[in-house]
Amino acid sequence: MKRIHFNEVVTRDGFQSEPTFIPTDEKIALIDELGQCGFSKIEATSFTSARAIPMLRDAEEVMRRIRRSSDVEYSVLVPNVRGAERALKSRADELNLVMSVSETHNLANLRMSREKSLADLRDVIALAAGHVPVNISLSTSFGCPMEGEIPLDEVLRWADRYASLGVRGLTICDTTGMAHPIQVARMAEALIARFSDLQLTLHFHNTRGMGLANVLAAVQAGIDRFDGSLGGLGGCPYAPGATGNICSEDAIHMLQAMGYDTGINLSQLMAAARKMPRIVGHEVPGQVAKAGHSTELHPPQHQ
Amino acid sequence: MKRIHFNEVVTRDGFQSEPTFIPTDEKIALIDELGQCGFSKIEATSFTSARAIPMLRDAEEVMRRIRRSSDVEYSVLVPNVRGAERALKSRADELNLVMSVSETHNLANLRMSREKSLADLRDVIALAAGHVPVNISLSTSFGCPMEGEIPLDEVLRWADRYASLGVRGLTICDTTGMAHPIQVARMAEALIARFSDLQLTLHFHNTRGMGLANVLAAVQAGIDRFDGSLGGLGGCPYAPGATGNICSEDAIHMLQAMGYDTGINLSQLMAAARKMPRIVGHEVPGQVAKAGHSTELHPPQHQ
Repeated sequence: MKRIHFNEVVTRDGFQSEPTFIPTDEKIALIDELGQCGFSKIEATSFTSARAIPMLRDAEEVMRRIRRSSDVEYSVLVPNVRGAERALKSRADELNLVMSVSETHNLANLRMSREKSLADLRDVIALAAGHVPVNISLSTSFGCPMEGEIPLDEVLRWADRYASLGVRGLTICDTTGMAHPIQVARMAEALIARFSDLQLTLHFHNTRGMGLANVLAAVQAGIDRFDGSLGGLGGCPYAPGATGNICSEDAIHMLQAMGYDTGINLSQLMAAARKMPRIVGHEVPGQVAKAGHSTELHPPQHQ
Repeated sequence: MKRIHFNEVVTRDGFQSEPTFIPTDEKIALIDELGQCGFSKIEATSFTSARAIPMLRDAEEVMRRIRRSSDVEYSVLVPNVRGAERALKSRADELNLVMSVSETHNLANLRMSREKSLADLRDVIALAAGHVPVNISLSTSFGCPMEGEIPLDEVLRWADRYASLGVRGLTICDTTGMAHPIQVARMAEALIARFSDLQLTLHFHNTRGMGLANVLAAVQAGIDRFDGSLGGLGGCPYAPGATGNICSEDAIHMLQAMGYDTGINLSQLMAAARKMPRIVGHEVPGQVAKAGHSTELHPPQHQ
């Protein structure tokens, strides 16, 4: 069966919204463990300012001390040229840039207009050229919690502009869990038709329970790359109490059960997932690490 | 768009696994509230022995005191002839019978062989004939936690036997959340091909996070009836800590967002769902009641 690639984002997108600092040693140990599970990519950390995101203030140390697996690309989030310089010095394999396709969300989240974001990120792309590939993550592509649904054409227009600047990959993000399967299928078809030469990734949140249904719709439409977060970590400020990113091990378990080749050692991944409550100090939303693999049998019992 | 019907099972399947008795008044108020939401069917309670399931010892009182909506069928679970007599006296609109297609699970759960179950339930079906329609729920149809995967032909064989006894409906249950979307599509196609004259319902659990993906796969294959539980209540003894039945409001929210006609007033249903933590005394797995409808907009904020 077809190969589906996963990019594990827990130590960046997942940890970023945690209230309590996670020790650098824990982050490194987790990234090293994930590096052995078969991911195509791991978004390890973010080169933002320590003041903006104190959780990821140890980006340099994390990138220096992880034991890199030759099969994995270690990607990092980069907000600007200063971050890109730090990322390149830290030998990141890929720079991941972020912009919202919703003007209101970009203003709220990044405190600048989309045009200003594009201008800044153009400089980052120029700096990375000839060194490492660049990926652009387009936030709120399936809807903005303040503006509502974002027209598909608007998403494609911004994707076009980044494609023409030479990015290798495009991640289309359902930042606050608003996407539904029909919308996902429509988006996936449009992306595949227009950007077949780019690495196309979908990034879903399970905020309203639709995360794995959206993965299914995307796979049916031909998408073969997803972001996932171990344990389903990574909340959303607009949905207190709701879950965050789709859970990597739940999505991978489903796709493997369906016969897809994910390249992932699921037992090893579930062992890592089971450490998450200790690492973050609270329960996590992921299901399969609690329930066990669907093929794990229980001894007969008479109630 | 096509109509999708929901059968709300929270006060039976959901409450049954709760450790603390829920007062009869609370059950009645909840069923009355659900009766106004647009469900095609509500599985209100179960006529089992009070010793076996103390939570539902108030079945007669519940059925007597609810205010019935003329648009809703009030179904009840019935394990045997004694239960069926009580149910008929209580003016239930439908009797729902249960048997596992896994011999091991039937022995563990109902303490009898499948053949003995069929013989007993044949008497129940005969008793109901001419009074109310009968539905048979076939547990562990997508896999048994002790036997593993159950061959599709085995499920169809038992369905055939009940169909020939004159049941109106067939509910195919993924009792412990083992089903995956390809298996669901295959099952749905086989059921529709063979039992087009029966009311076909699918019953999923979200134990491994695949619940709504399975709903999607089933709808794509032509299924138009689902069991759901408010808040996602209803655990599984084989998966401590994992979630239970698919969450009605999450499934309905997804299908409505996709354009399906569910007949449900979702705002009213979400209001009911938000009472669940108080009623059962703990958090519930449902997502959309926490996050809000995907079309609910938030005021712009600058962080």
